[in-house]
Amino acid sequence: MNRPLFEAVPNFSEGRDEGRISRITAAVRDVGNVGVLDLHSDPDHNRSVLTFAGGEEAVLEAAVALARACADEIDLAAQTGQHPRMGALDVLPFVPLEGATLEGAVGLARKAGERIGSIGLPVYLYEAAATAPHRRNLADVRRGGYEGLAARIEDPRWRPDFGPQELDPRKGAVAVGARRFLVAFNAYLDTGDVEVARAVARQVRERDGGLPGVKALGLKVGGRAQVSMNLTDLEKTPMPIVLEAVRSAAAERGASVASTEVVGLAPLEALVQIARHYLKLQKLETGHVLEARLWETR
Amino acid sequence: MNRPLFEAVPNFSEGRDEGRISRITAAVRDVGNVGVLDLHSDPDHNRSVLTFAGGEEAVLEAAVALARACADEIDLAAQTGQHPRMGALDVLPFVPLEGATLEGAVGLARKAGERIGSIGLPVYLYEAAATAPHRRNLADVRRGGYEGLAARIEDPRWRPDFGPQELDPRKGAVAVGARRFLVAFNAYLDTGDVEVARAVARQVRERDGGLPGVKALGLKVGGRAQVSMNLTDLEKTPMPIVLEAVRSAAAERGASVASTEVVGLAPLEALVQIARHYLKLQKLETGHVLEARLWETR
Repeated sequence: MNRPLFEAVPNFSEGRDEGRISRITAAVRDVGNVGVLDLHSDPDHNRSVLTFAGGEEAVLEAAVALARACADEIDLAAQTGQHPRMGALDVLPFVPLEGATLEGAVGLARKAGERIGSIGLPVYLYEAAATAPHRRNLADVRRGGYEGLAARIEDPRWRPDFGPQELDPRKGAVAVGARRFLVAFNAYLDTGDVEVARAVARQVRERDGGLPGVKALGLKVGGRAQVSMNLTDLEKTPMPIVLEAVRSAAAERGASVASTEVVGLAPLEALVQIARHYLKLQKLETGHVLEARLWETR
Repeated sequence: MNRPLFEAVPNFSEGRDEGRISRITAAVRDVGNVGVLDLHSDPDHNRSVLTFAGGEEAVLEAAVALARACADEIDLAAQTGQHPRMGALDVLPFVPLEGATLEGAVGLARKAGERIGSIGLPVYLYEAAATAPHRRNLADVRRGGYEGLAARIEDPRWRPDFGPQELDPRKGAVAVGARRFLVAFNAYLDTGDVEVARAVARQVRERDGGLPGVKALGLKVGGRAQVSMNLTDLEKTPMPIVLEAVRSAAAERGASVASTEVVGLAPLEALVQIARHYLKLQKLETGHVLEARLWETR
């Protein structure tokens, strides 16, 4: 396995109708050479998150097929749900995996954006793929949502990067982006006091001068204070560094970490970093993991 | 990937002649559907260790092809080297991997033994595949080595399990066995005193009342005291339990663990156990590792 691998994590605006969801997912599977890793449908938000991966060409074709299927299956004008959205296919981030770079994901996002534009959907590039600084942040790109889009698309600062410069109200617009792999890592504290979790979150997150690539919020989940984090740069800030910072910030407030959890997937490299840190393990790499070696040889 | 996978780790008595080594290895590759994970040739010992893996049928065919190639390429009567050995193909252990059991590996070892016997090599089954308790330990099976084999094969307690009941001096005999996957895990102490490493080894190893599945020796390596371990049952004794026992036994003697290393491969499950232990990580399984999920879908 030497060719670079990419992951796509499209969010589309259908989370209730199983027939539609399975036809949209089938469009991705039918392309071949992509693996569907996960599908999470949320009826309250009326929204699904699909995760698939493969080589560049296959992921590109699958993403375009997905955009077409979403446009065919979903009428956004009739859709309701709690989650902010602006399109039938709402958000389409590409993520570099094994052997791939963020630059490669940007290239893939732009190719996908152009193709999706050519099938008639307005496309906004965001995050690492953005064409202007004010379009990097997804929340900014999506501000006002579907309802505000008709006015916004006329604003010269918010012309789509690809596709029609006017809106089909049934389809909305698509945000296509590139970002690093993100690990959702939560630490539960041995307290029910959400203020402790909030203070710990402020102390560890990048925005407030904490650790690079760490986003954090303090929440109360099932009666327990939780520091809910997204780790966006494991190279700069591996999980053990995050955990020890959380432990120390909690200890300053008389609390400790009762347990942690990873939501969704973690890359093998994250586990290797953990082993290196806590075992003072020299020279361990992902290539020393039996299964990784096995899979390489196939 | 639902079919059980097995690994074979044959040791053969050629570690110098690259042409012979590559022809022997090619015999394995030519079978197809096996992945060659590692080849380590040692000119001093005049011996090579090959690691390959795949489904049961493919591993069986590759092992038989390997035995035939070793018999063709190696003249043991002309071979010299420091390592104890009794055959051209000397030792052939089978190891259960994903989805496979030790019982499955025993079945595979017995089939391979029968087939290798039928091509004219005396076969002794050992470890989990042994047909009598006194034949379980490889060191006992191989005692006296090649030089003692001619006499030994006449001893009723040491008749081969398969193949000719007499010796071809150019080929010797083969020990075919089944064992669990083994992690070679070493801890370096912050002392040069090998007696500390020996005392720690005695305290942690199963043989002297320590941890299940842990074999340990105290050595001096590069001027440093090293606790050299084989971990044969990660289910009962995960790596963090081993390390913490070594740390505590070393601390009782005023020493600490400076670093650790894994020699060869470690299974993914070992890394998951480490993450669970040191991060108090709930619910993490190998299925939550991105690459494992990717590889599953292929």
